[in-house]
This record gives sequence, structure tokens and C-alpha cells, in this order.
Amino acid sequence: MNIEMIRAAAERLEGHARFTPLLSSPFIDQLAGRRVLIKAECLQHTGSFKYRGGYAAVSALSQEARARGVIAFSSGNHAQGVALAAAQHDAPAVIIMPTDAPRLKIENTRALGAEVVLYDRVTGDRDAIGTQMAQERGLTLIKPFDEPQVIAGQGTTGLEIAQQAKAEGVTQADVLVCCGGGGLTSGIALAFEADAPGLRARPVEPKGFDDAARSLAAGTIQSNEQMTGSICDAIVTPRPGDLTFPIMQRLCGPGLVVTDHEALRAMAQAFLRLKIILEPGGAVALAAALCRRDQIEGDAVIVVASGGNVDIGMYEQALDTLRS
Amino acid sequence: MNIEMIRAAAERLEGHARFTPLLSSPFIDQLAGRRVLIKAECLQHTGSFKYRGGYAAVSALSQEARARGVIAFSSGNHAQGVALAAAQHDAPAVIIMPTDAPRLKIENTRALGAEVVLYDRVTGDRDAIGTQMAQERGLTLIKPFDEPQVIAGQGTTGLEIAQQAKAEGVTQADVLVCCGGGGLTSGIALAFEADAPGLRARPVEPKGFDDAARSLAAGTIQSNEQMTGSICDAIVTPRPGDLTFPIMQRLCGPGLVVTDHEALRAMAQAFLRLKIILEPGGAVALAAALCRRDQIEGDAVIVVASGGNVDIGMYEQALDTLRS
Repeated sequence: MNIEMIRAAAERLEGHARFTPLLSSPFIDQLAGRRVLIKAECLQHTGSFKYRGGYAAVSALSQEARARGVIAFSSGNHAQGVALAAAQHDAPAVIIMPTDAPRLKIENTRALGAEVVLYDRVTGDRDAIGTQMAQERGLTLIKPFDEPQVIAGQGTTGLEIAQQAKAEGVTQADVLVCCGGGGLTSGIALAFEADAPGLRARPVEPKGFDDAARSLAAGTIQSNEQMTGSICDAIVTPRPGDLTFPIMQRLCGPGLVVTDHEALRAMAQAFLRLKIILEPGGAVALAAALCRRDQIEGDAVIVVASGGNVDIGMYEQALDTLRS
Repeated sequence: MNIEMIRAAAERLEGHARFTPLLSSPFIDQLAGRRVLIKAECLQHTGSFKYRGGYAAVSALSQEARARGVIAFSSGNHAQGVALAAAQHDAPAVIIMPTDAPRLKIENTRALGAEVVLYDRVTGDRDAIGTQMAQERGLTLIKPFDEPQVIAGQGTTGLEIAQQAKAEGVTQADVLVCCGGGGLTSGIALAFEADAPGLRARPVEPKGFDDAARSLAAGTIQSNEQMTGSICDAIVTPRPGDLTFPIMQRLCGPGLVVTDHEALRAMAQAFLRLKIILEPGGAVALAAALCRRDQIEGDAVIVVASGGNVDIGMYEQALDTLRS
């Protein structure tokens, strides 16, 4: 896993992935107590950064492997990213999703042409299910984060941020990244190491699911005690990956932790001030910028707003926080 | 009013206005029956394209005029655009707003440092109020649309669309533009005349407030019979402007008309598929692409999503359309 893989992924993604904008608002700056630049990956195809990793992985396969097809397991964003990327390569796609994934994500994955297989998030072992199906049908398994080509694809976000931050005159800053298994965080960190050494990636997680923060603090991989109970479905993962954690340990700053309510409030600020839709798991980094200002260094902070696939009911809960 | 003024405005706006993305979604394409490219001006500073015209106008003033200050009348988006542009030029700003403007727009305009004066949309004459205050305090009046520098600023949107559409391989298409007084529509049409002669701007308005469509059909300026009764506050204007109408008549295709409910449904699709917040008046062009397909020509259509400053209650009404 190295920067050359990220640059190669960027070349393959050229003309496919969207170069997403870096947004800002004086109102957000005021709330955060510093300048805030928001990388709007919710505007990426399929509504999250996951399309980058999906496309990078599918495009790296041989013609034969593509023809047999791919399989992925995901609460929904990786699912949609892989489904669209597979469709664009004429590759069949099987997606294994938890039964409690947001309905919108399940429907979209199906609508993008994938075959969806549901499993129980608490009692099922999605790795085992995925591996078995992959063997039976000759499908290539595209893991959601602990997979070099996926990390390379997500890392292209970091290449863009490095370029955009420089154009904004920001060369020293914490970069807050919504973190599940660490694919996006580690990919961005590798991109910064090469292109923007003054930028420091820091994972942000929901309270109770802060495996990355605890792992970084302990120096060894720590697991979450539970797998349900957060509205931030996109970033609830058992533990950091074997590939992603060493990268994060070498390059990332300390993790940050926010509550579900703080994520909802950040979604509401994104509605009010940025005019972008964020889902809870895609809003934790913005929430940290707004609610953890004492734990952040520097005059400016960069936030990766990683996804926007949220059901109506949850979105209305977020808007409701503006009324209280 | 000519293309050179638009190009000059683009130079002054460089590094200030955001070059907004051209979004798309396979789900939107399917609903519309053709390829749809959406220019997301809701992501512009202050949440609408109006910042372009505001900045172009304020930056064109002499140092002395700026020091005395500017005045504008607006239901909210022009207000915010002028307020921010004035603040960035250290110019005092007085903004005359209707009492029934969305609360968010009034609050934001104040927060951006402007002095807000409220008037009654039915019984008041905002032109008379504005002209009198401008004379009393030596303020320069920046009209919302019938003002060359404002048209030039809005026209920079058209320069960007011409460039982005070409990169997407789209050189022949209708370009649907949310239309109030015609500043954006006429500015974009002038930009296309120079840079993308195969693109044709067409105004889109809410039912009952289709003065531009009727004026184009009649060949002379027609007025609306009422000034209230649409949720599309941003684009409810008495009639096309004396400057904007001749440009529209020379360059634009026929107008399109949508209902308020269709605008709400378009807002909901923008939530689901594009992850951007639109206000009713900023969604009518997307609504026309989705609901007036037989009145549109070509394999692709471009939509200008012009603004996203919407109150929570109205937004929830839009989301509710997904439930029925």
C-alpha cells in the first residue's frame, strides 16, 4: 500500500469520480471558532466517497475476473459504490447488506443493478457469508476497507484535498475524517504524507463505537463491544483493519468522538449553511469541528463530509434539532 | 450589456465566487427520460447564484461610492448576496425585504452585517422606498435584476455551464433556468451566445407567476396579476425587466411553467439523488425537467438549481411528497 497506488487509482478514476468541491460558510466558521473547509463527498456519485474505492477496485480487476463478477458486504454506501462501479464495467455484483441498513441504501443498491443478500448484523458473520459466496460463484470479494485498491481509491480524496487546501492557502491543519474501518482515513493520510505533509488526518467516530480512537491511543487494535445502537450506521465497524490501522498509527493524529445528537446537529448546520445533505455517519467530522474545538489545533480545520444517504425520518430528526 | 461585461465580471469574481459543480444521477436521468446535468448554484456563497451579481455590482463601484454604501431590495437571496459582497468590500449595506420573506433569509442578511428594512409586499412599493433611501443617504441602489453589472455577474454562471457542458460532451441542449426578473436567464443566454451557441436558455416559472413565459409568447412585456400565493418566493416578480426582456426575447427558448407541488417534488428528488438542498424557487427548473419532458428538446437537458435558502417547515413539506 503506497502513494503510487493512490496516484494510479486517481488516473483510473479520472472522468468517472467527481472532483468534489471544498465548501465553507462564515456561519460555520463562527460556530467552530476557526476557519472550516468542508470536502463535500456526499456529492460524489452514489452519495458517498465509497464510489471511489469501489471503482478503483473493480477497474483493477482482470477482464476475466470482472466477467465472473464481484461481491461486497456493506451497510449501504460501499454497496452502492461497488454496485455502480460494477455496472459501469459490465460486471455482475452481489452485495451482502445488514437487515437494519437504511431502506434507501438497500433500494438504491438494487436499483443500481446489484443482487442484494441480507444478513443479521448481530448474529450473522458477514465475512464468512461473503467468503463462501465468493468461492461458490467465482466472484471477487471487494472488502469495504481492508483492501489495498479500496484504500487507494479512497485516498484520491486526499489528493484532491491537498490540492484544494493549498489553493485556499491552508497548508497546516487537522483534517477530520468520518471513520469506520479506516479505509478513507488511512488513504487520505497516505495522500497527505506525499502531497501535503502539513495536513494531519484524524479519525472521528460516534460515542460507543470509537475503536479507531482507542486503538490509536493504545497502540494496538481495539474492538467495539457492540455493533448496534448508533444512528451512524455507515461507520459502525467491529475494529480498524489490519491494513488500515498501521497506516493510521504511523500518520494520523488522535481520534475524536462525538455523540449521535451532535451528529444530528451537524447535519442541521449542513442543511442551513452549506446546502448539502449529510447522513449521521457522514456528519461526525463536521460535528467534531463544531463541538470539540478545544481538541483541534490551528486556525483552520478541514472536514470530510463523507456521505449523504439518509432516510427521511432520520433527516427530520436532524432538522428538529434546530427547533430546540 | 454585452459578453465583455460578463467576462470582466468573471475576472473580478475569480477567487471569490465558487465554481459550482455540475451534478447528475442515473435515478434523475431515468425520471426525466433523458440525461440531466444540474448546475448546483445552491452551493454558491450565501446559498444562491445571487452572490455573483451582488459581487459583480459592488466590485464595479468606485472607492467613494463603496464607502457611502449600497442598498438593495430583495425577498432574500439578492439580499444575502449583496450583503456578503458589501461586507467583503467594507461597504455599508441597507437591504429592503418583504415582511413575508422566509425568516432564514432575513436573519442571514442581518447576520452578514446588513441593515434590514422590512416592507409589505402587497401594499408597499419597494422601488419607491429604495430610490428614496438611496437618495437620502447617498447609497448606490443595486437592483435585483434590471442592472447591467448584476446581469453580468449572473451571466458568469453561463460561462461556467458552457465550459462544463462541453467537458461532458453536451453541446446541443435546452438549459432550464429558474426565472424571476430574468437577470440569471438573460445573463446565461448572453454567455451561451458567445461560448456555447448550441445551448438554449429557457426560463422556468411557477404557475400563476409566468410573466416571462407569457411575455416571450406575446413578444411584449406582460405582468403578473398577483404578487403573493406561490411558495417560490425567490422568483415572484411583477414582470421581466426592461433590460432583461429584450435579451431573453432575442436569445431564449419558450418558457416553462410548473406547479408549487411539482417544485416540492423536485426538492425531494434533489434530497434523495443529488444530496443538495433546494428551495422551491430554486427547484422549478429541475421540476420542469422531471415533469415537462414533452416540452423539452434533445437527449440531454441542463438545469440551473439556483438556490437553497429554505425554512425547515417548507423543507419538511417537500420531504413529505416522498411519502405519498
